[in-house]
Amino acid sequence: MNVKECLEYVTKVDMEAKKYMHAAGVLQYDMETICPSAAMEEEGEVSSFLANKAYELKKDDKYIENMEYLYEHREELGDLDNARAYVFHRDFEKEKNITPKMQLEFSNVYNKGFVAWLDAKSKSDFGLFSKALSDIKDVEMKTYNLCDKKYDSCYDFLFDRYEEGVTSKDLDEAFGAFKDRIIPLLKNIQNSKKKIRTDFMSRKVTDAEQMELSQRIMDLIGMDKDRRALSLSEHPFTDGYSYSDVRITTHFYEDNFASSMYSIIHEGGHALFEMFQPKENFEHFLNDKTMGQHESVSRFYENIIGRSKGFVHLIYPIVKEVFKGRFNDVTEEELYEALNLVTPSLVRTEADELTYTFHIIIRYEIEKMIVNEGYNIEDLPKLWNEKYKEYLGIDVPNDKEGVLQDMHWASGFGYFPTYALGNMYNSMYYNKMKEDMDVEKEVSEGHMDKILAWMSSHVFAKADRMAPKDWIKDITGRNFTPNDFLDYLEDKYTKIYEL
Amino acid sequence: MNVKECLEYVTKVDMEAKKYMHAAGVLQYDMETICPSAAMEEEGEVSSFLANKAYELKKDDKYIENMEYLYEHREELGDLDNARAYVFHRDFEKEKNITPKMQLEFSNVYNKGFVAWLDAKSKSDFGLFSKALSDIKDVEMKTYNLCDKKYDSCYDFLFDRYEEGVTSKDLDEAFGAFKDRIIPLLKNIQNSKKKIRTDFMSRKVTDAEQMELSQRIMDLIGMDKDRRALSLSEHPFTDGYSYSDVRITTHFYEDNFASSMYSIIHEGGHALFEMFQPKENFEHFLNDKTMGQHESVSRFYENIIGRSKGFVHLIYPIVKEVFKGRFNDVTEEELYEALNLVTPSLVRTEADELTYTFHIIIRYEIEKMIVNEGYNIEDLPKLWNEKYKEYLGIDVPNDKEGVLQDMHWASGFGYFPTYALGNMYNSMYYNKMKEDMDVEKEVSEGHMDKILAWMSSHVFAKADRMAPKDWIKDITGRNFTPNDFLDYLEDKYTKIYEL
Repeated sequence: MNVKECLEYVTKVDMEAKKYMHAAGVLQYDMETICPSAAMEEEGEVSSFLANKAYELKKDDKYIENMEYLYEHREELGDLDNARAYVFHRDFEKEKNITPKMQLEFSNVYNKGFVAWLDAKSKSDFGLFSKALSDIKDVEMKTYNLCDKKYDSCYDFLFDRYEEGVTSKDLDEAFGAFKDRIIPLLKNIQNSKKKIRTDFMSRKVTDAEQMELSQRIMDLIGMDKDRRALSLSEHPFTDGYSYSDVRITTHFYEDNFASSMYSIIHEGGHALFEMFQPKENFEHFLNDKTMGQHESVSRFYENIIGRSKGFVHLIYPIVKEVFKGRFNDVTEEELYEALNLVTPSLVRTEADELTYTFHIIIRYEIEKMIVNEGYNIEDLPKLWNEKYKEYLGIDVPNDKEGVLQDMHWASGFGYFPTYALGNMYNSMYYNKMKEDMDVEKEVSEGHMDKILAWMSSHVFAKADRMAPKDWIKDITGRNFTPNDFLDYLEDKYTKIYEL
Repeated sequence: MNVKECLEYVTKVDMEAKKYMHAAGVLQYDMETICPSAAMEEEGEVSSFLANKAYELKKDDKYIENMEYLYEHREELGDLDNARAYVFHRDFEKEKNITPKMQLEFSNVYNKGFVAWLDAKSKSDFGLFSKALSDIKDVEMKTYNLCDKKYDSCYDFLFDRYEEGVTSKDLDEAFGAFKDRIIPLLKNIQNSKKKIRTDFMSRKVTDAEQMELSQRIMDLIGMDKDRRALSLSEHPFTDGYSYSDVRITTHFYEDNFASSMYSIIHEGGHALFEMFQPKENFEHFLNDKTMGQHESVSRFYENIIGRSKGFVHLIYPIVKEVFKGRFNDVTEEELYEALNLVTPSLVRTEADELTYTFHIIIRYEIEKMIVNEGYNIEDLPKLWNEKYKEYLGIDVPNDKEGVLQDMHWASGFGYFPTYALGNMYNSMYYNKMKEDMDVEKEVSEGHMDKILAWMSSHVFAKADRMAPKDWIKDITGRNFTPNDFLDYLEDKYTKIYEL
């Protein structure tokens, strides 16, 4: 056995596995965008079948033996193969007791959950989802119990799948700091005399106009035309299957142009991360960013850039043009303020930048209660509604806009905090970026390519090879802290609300 | 070995193969509707990889042995399993010398051809497609040479893949009869004094309006909402992956509402055939209609029903409503006549019902010259343009609207005549249908469900189990003849043009 032979062997297997995963991914995309409702479960099963073929290939003894050999000899490998062996070893440890047969079984539980969630949401009835969610919870617990590696809690295990090396202790600290500083700020905002004009935000716009705006924004932020696709789906998301194939989705509302506009910028951020990472990552089967890394980029584009004065300056004439003059009575300043209006609300994806994190904290607390404390799934709507009252002062009118609003739990628990971590990471690298250029000025002058180039070399380049805490330290020279985000929020909203 | 065990074994294999083919099909659909241009070839390779996995499963000795055992003992089987064994035996004979490795190679040649065709068409330059098409021709010839079964010519072999048991002798006779009777009719039409109003046919319509019209038509003809999907693509087509998943595509032109309207009705016909065939077909892995059978249904809906007075009566108020009154100055009679205007034209899919067959005859003659006589692929544009001048009196301005207009040759030769056969089959069963009901009256009163029920029990029910000539005799009690079609055309157009 030697490193060269091992690499050849695992590459052959990885190439085949990648084909299965490519197909499984396109099928999932299809399910969320075009598949007829009666065929959803069936198509989910086909997707699971293919993903399971890939899983089988990687559970083969010879493959494992070769990969472990590479891991043990990783000092002989180039950077990218080294990272590839590391990622394998890390993931393998977490799931080594899950046989291909179990994996297929589990995966069909998630499928059924997704289909049940869709149905329950369309009928606004959590009862139609609770049994499937309970099965998902059981699978999540089983997966935890099958893992040899030790974690402080089941939740820590589940979260670690998305965000290597970050624990609920880290999250508790970060969310604690957030509450300490942002609850008083929110109170001040709500008591402020500042009037923000919003009447135009619900003006009627057509799907065709929103499609035009979406294309213009994708061009503007730098998404390659020949490597991208855009579809419509209930819940916007991004997926990518190769260097040449990165897709985003959005959802058009005729009385809320900002919803799709920010979905496009958010998913566009994810897409840029996929499109402009080093091409060699793909050649080394290394495409394994954490969700927090990913959300940091999408939310960087959505909020730090997308809701900045510079970007509003860029988008203002486009909005006026695309909507055929119907926003001509709105000033640039009015648009900027309206897009940054702070108002506690019901739906996470429509939340403003400041109250958004409360939506995450609510989900985080609920998830922990479910998996660590055995909270009864059937009682979730009650718990959900209580927390919305507590944190946001909001009465939840129905399950559709309440506990059923997000699709994430149909894929398991532990994803949500990555959004909040994303905000904390990106505020840190935003401060670093500002040392290298006048970001606001570059954006307002339309030099989005400079932003992308910086992101590409500083943020995207090594994401696949590093655990998030190491990665953020590598970019910024500092240890992870929520404070940059909190400073950013205080500074920005104190100005807007003239506090 | 016994029949029960064999059935169990082949069913297990067929279920797995079906999953691969389901995924390969969705990937092909994705390529034609959403896949980014840079990723087309790559996605085609993944689709081929999966289709090849299915091919491999069915080339396994044990599978073949079991299937052949079933074929030899088919008198012990139920109707559907009998048909399944027959279809296997028939297809196996044609491709038994093609190894899985060859199959994958060939399939990637077609993929490359499709990508090259897309590129060439977008640039209107046949030169960009000729090498790929030449490779496709070579693969087609190879496939023929690898077949042990004897045919009169390579073309007969290729056509037999689409239309079991119909030969170029049959086609020559049918097309000969067509030319004898329709060339004089066309001349009379062109010399007639009848004025048909067409000014409104190019009125501007929006995509959203056309989408609304498409949905209304799908509802009208009876396509189940929860088992259907509609996407946009360059070239309209239909695909189906299961009983619950049948999809059609269309293409919107802002100055030609009739184009998409008839695409929807045509593809809708294909979709109804898939949706309302016996459900047990799927359970017996029997879904293998010939293309002529399929085109007979799509063109039945498109022309015999879709361009009839009864259907125009149905669609007339819908058109006025969907296009928001912009067609209010058009009478029902004017709409009927305009939708049946006879005028030789450049593009097959936009051709009227009467001149359509000339487009097919041209392609048929060219295909035969390529595969039987070794006609030089590079000279195709010249040949194409000459034939359009000869049969339709039309000058072809460019490759895009000429030799590159259809995607079919990227999948090989021999498909086109199935469209013409479809017209001949459906005119025969239309005469039978008229014995059972007043079709025109039922349609004009909106009883499309009665049409569908008749089609389902008479036309769809046994299509998978019978070769087309036997099938049409089973439906009508008569042997195949082109005369019903020719009578239908003469009768209809003599009236419209008052000859």
